[in-house]
Amino acid sequence: MNNNYEFYEKPLDTARLLEGKIVNVRRDTVELINGKTAFREVVEHPGGVVILAVDDKRRAYMVRQYRYPICKELLEVPAGKLERGEAPLDGAIRELKEETGLTAGKLIYFGGTYPSPGFCDEQLHIYLALELSQGEACPDEDEFLRVEAIDLDELAEMALRGELPDGKTINAIFMAREYLRKNQA
Amino acid sequence: MNNNYEFYEKPLDTARLLEGKIVNVRRDTVELINGKTAFREVVEHPGGVVILAVDDKRRAYMVRQYRYPICKELLEVPAGKLERGEAPLDGAIRELKEETGLTAGKLIYFGGTYPSPGFCDEQLHIYLALELSQGEACPDEDEFLRVEAIDLDELAEMALRGELPDGKTINAIFMAREYLRKNQA
Repeated sequence: MNNNYEFYEKPLDTARLLEGKIVNVRRDTVELINGKTAFREVVEHPGGVVILAVDDKRRAYMVRQYRYPICKELLEVPAGKLERGEAPLDGAIRELKEETGLTAGKLIYFGGTYPSPGFCDEQLHIYLALELSQGEACPDEDEFLRVEAIDLDELAEMALRGELPDGKTINAIFMAREYLRKNQA
Repeated sequence: MNNNYEFYEKPLDTARLLEGKIVNVRRDTVELINGKTAFREVVEHPGGVVILAVDDKRRAYMVRQYRYPICKELLEVPAGKLERGEAPLDGAIRELKEETGLTAGKLIYFGGTYPSPGFCDEQLHIYLALELSQGEACPDEDEFLRVEAIDLDELAEMALRGELPDGKTINAIFMAREYLRKNQA
């Protein structure tokens, strides 16, 4: 907790509403800077990692999978939840290997992002993976996905056309392009 | 529901776990493509709009606000939840006006994005607002924020340095830069 913020909201009380398998939900009572109190509903999530692997032909390795909450199949950057106590870098190496079979000679960290900071504490750590070696994929039992390698600039076009609606995927693609533009001849 | 997907998960049963003020949570039993059953925990959210307003000097209007779930103040693109039955375009016009006082002569739609499709059905509709006119801001009572106009390319640099960790903000900034690069002399 840090109260050095201009618009700080001071926690006064908390009520646990739900202990789920993936998420928990609590409702906190907070004091606003005008002295009034308000409720804040908070979804607690373990956080995850996002790994955009780009080969030396500028092809990015994407995974197509069904997303039950939205009843759609999406093309996404490989990603997954962090296991309890797992460091983000270890999670990134593990998830990339599990979903695509790839290992990376170089991993560049773009930082932690918050997909929905208004109501959820989920943090996603985004990595760019380079200098790739192909091995055997080993997805979790009951995890179904298909890997597709697609040109990075084509992916940016797809994002602008609305064909790549996963938020973390758009983030990773544009950050990777910007990084590669600056750091490669 | 659509079962034309390769990795479709068929809903078999549903249990309501929580009816909250902002989110609801349910746990569905689904049938996987291998015939096994699994649980899916789904957070239901009303969805929202994101509006990146860019003026003729390429400055983007950002809002700084405290995000209680992560105990941090973030610099974000203006955004807000959709009201019941509200069309996304109407929500975008309303939220931009409320938070910044701006009205736009031109609104470009970049499509709907999913911040966390693995466990949440939240959809965020992203707009670029151009041809701006300044009026009076009118934030909700108990909504505290400060508007800052920042150069669009500087914002992209900040994103790459990890100084702009809000997912929807990174999405909107890079999509806007790509759009403006293609559509302006």
